Amino acid sequence: MSLAASVLDGNRLALARLLTQVESGSAEGMAALNELFAHTGQAHLIGVTGAPGTGKSSLVNQLAQHYRRQAGGGAGRRVGVIAVDPSSPFTGGALLGDRVRMRDLAGDPGVFIRSMASRGALGGLAAATSGFAQVLDAAGFEVILIETVGAGQDEVDIARMAHTTIVIEAPGLGDDIQAIKAGILEIADILVVNKADRPGVENTERALRNMLMLAEPAQVELAHHAGEGAAGVDEGGDRRAWRPPVLCTVATEGMGIAEVAEAIEAHRAYLQVSGEWQRREQARLEAELRALVQASLVGRWRATISDERYQGVLRGLVERELSPGEAARRLLDGGSG
Amino acid sequence: MSLAASVLDGNRLALARLLTQVESGSAEGMAALNELFAHTGQAHLIGVTGAPGTGKSSLVNQLAQHYRRQAGGGAGRRVGVIAVDPSSPFTGGALLGDRVRMRDLAGDPGVFIRSMASRGALGGLAAATSGFAQVLDAAGFEVILIETVGAGQDEVDIARMAHTTIVIEAPGLGDDIQAIKAGILEIADILVVNKADRPGVENTERALRNMLMLAEPAQVELAHHAGEGAAGVDEGGDRRAWRPPVLCTVATEGMGIAEVAEAIEAHRAYLQVSGEWQRREQARLEAELRALVQASLVGRWRATISDERYQGVLRGLVERELSPGEAARRLLDGGSG
Repeated sequence: MSLAASVLDGNRLALARLLTQVESGSAEGMAALNELFAHTGQAHLIGVTGAPGTGKSSLVNQLAQHYRRQAGGGAGRRVGVIAVDPSSPFTGGALLGDRVRMRDLAGDPGVFIRSMASRGALGGLAAATSGFAQVLDAAGFEVILIETVGAGQDEVDIARMAHTTIVIEAPGLGDDIQAIKAGILEIADILVVNKADRPGVENTERALRNMLMLAEPAQVELAHHAGEGAAGVDEGGDRRAWRPPVLCTVATEGMGIAEVAEAIEAHRAYLQVSGEWQRREQARLEAELRALVQASLVGRWRATISDERYQGVLRGLVERELSPGEAARRLLDGGSG
Repeated sequence: MSLAASVLDGNRLALARLLTQVESGSAEGMAALNELFAHTGQAHLIGVTGAPGTGKSSLVNQLAQHYRRQAGGGAGRRVGVIAVDPSSPFTGGALLGDRVRMRDLAGDPGVFIRSMASRGALGGLAAATSGFAQVLDAAGFEVILIETVGAGQDEVDIARMAHTTIVIEAPGLGDDIQAIKAGILEIADILVVNKADRPGVENTERALRNMLMLAEPAQVELAHHAGEGAAGVDEGGDRRAWRPPVLCTVATEGMGIAEVAEAIEAHRAYLQVSGEWQRREQARLEAELRALVQASLVGRWRATISDERYQGVLRGLVERELSPGEAARRLLDGGSG
């Protein structure tokens, strides 16, 4: 049985092995991704992003437990967790308390947790994360939580891959407004103020609402308060406008988690009704296609250039006889370099 | 006179215009970079990186003022500032107090401050930042401070471009150890605990020293304390080992700035003595060359594919008839797609 077939068959060891191969970019891993691809497209990908210290991992942990408890006919939804954040307890950089909290999920066969082994994943973090999500999706995990630090283009790319992106802030992380990153707020579907039992929570909440108002005056629900139910599709008319709700949680206590899960469901309904789900899927697949094409083009080109020629051009560059642009042109056009 | 020639002539307006062209990736901008390249290689590039709220901008501001005051024959060194951090006051996302502090530098012709207009710089943030640094270098700015948020691969790439990378932490940004990003610590040449007048400074300092010890037991100066002078080349023997010093500052008060500047000079001396300066230059130029080649390869390839064919393959991908790998192969090999 192929590795991919074993994964489809529910073999957890095969799943873990395949993820390792996907991360390293091995030929077997890539072949398995091809084989599994037809089985993907079912999972709800949820990005959870925020600065270190905001309590992302606790929220992810609690959300996972929430989905497991949400028993329809006795069994909750199957949950995958991908931890891209190097400071996450899931990736190993954790304090003891976090490790203890993680154990809540450890024995559950309906949960699969996987972290990126390093920043150096072949083809980049975004490609490896996408591969992980595809494998977990094909393996039947219905909810996939992707935890990232949420700064830098790479992280934004990962967040863009999710259907629903949750951005977490916490009170007291420096000056209220400075702590909110401009690029991340733009991609937030749901905003969470975690550690809401700490002083300063009102300031953080207010700062987030103000920034949302500045960003898109028409789309912010002014009167919304935490616990009043999640914001969602504007029932009054335009079914396309999603207004990111601002919710308060104390993840370590499980407070506010049900409301976050409710907002996630409301967002999913909005995505499907508005056609946005399809549009995000297409944008994501196209980005992935472009990344693959690019990697392949570079690999093929490099194989056509002798090391001697490459080093010669590089020497000209380092000695500032050639500018980077001129050096690139020589390597591409087969000049005298 | 060409834009590049005007820049070499000291024209600030031309400099500002050229940076805009470099950011947008215009042909004129690229031509000017080629023209200016032979004049680069003099500046000391200093990356200043840390989470929002650590006070990076204040430190950059104070360092710039320090270099301006460092009068040899009456005039300090010329300083360029490149702000890549979207939350930086230099980029416009600032509180009033920060803007007031920025004014300290505003009227000085020996200082040039420029921010990235957006995350969407053509060719990526790292390429635009590198172009900016080259222009400022050619224009005679001797010290170039590059401010970034310091998380995500893109930020790490930018930090790698610097000769000297300063990583800033501050007390009270969440749990001591969680706030320290694994990937960033590895590239730190100098560690600064800013806001050292706040409670918890000892914990932050200790956490940093412990992480340094874990990372490289032999290279950490155990007995080093802030204000005792900057760590530097190990006088006892191996002149190649740089031990990142941990320094405390209160940047808003100017406290500890002279010590940071001293550590920067010590690091510069180390780089030059050890040959590391040359190695970093070469690695940086090679990375830039590769990025240019890659962008060009993708552009040329895209021009050979009809929109119809591209859309057809994309449709097969979205409908999950083709995996991303198969779709890429069709587009590259001219199959039946």
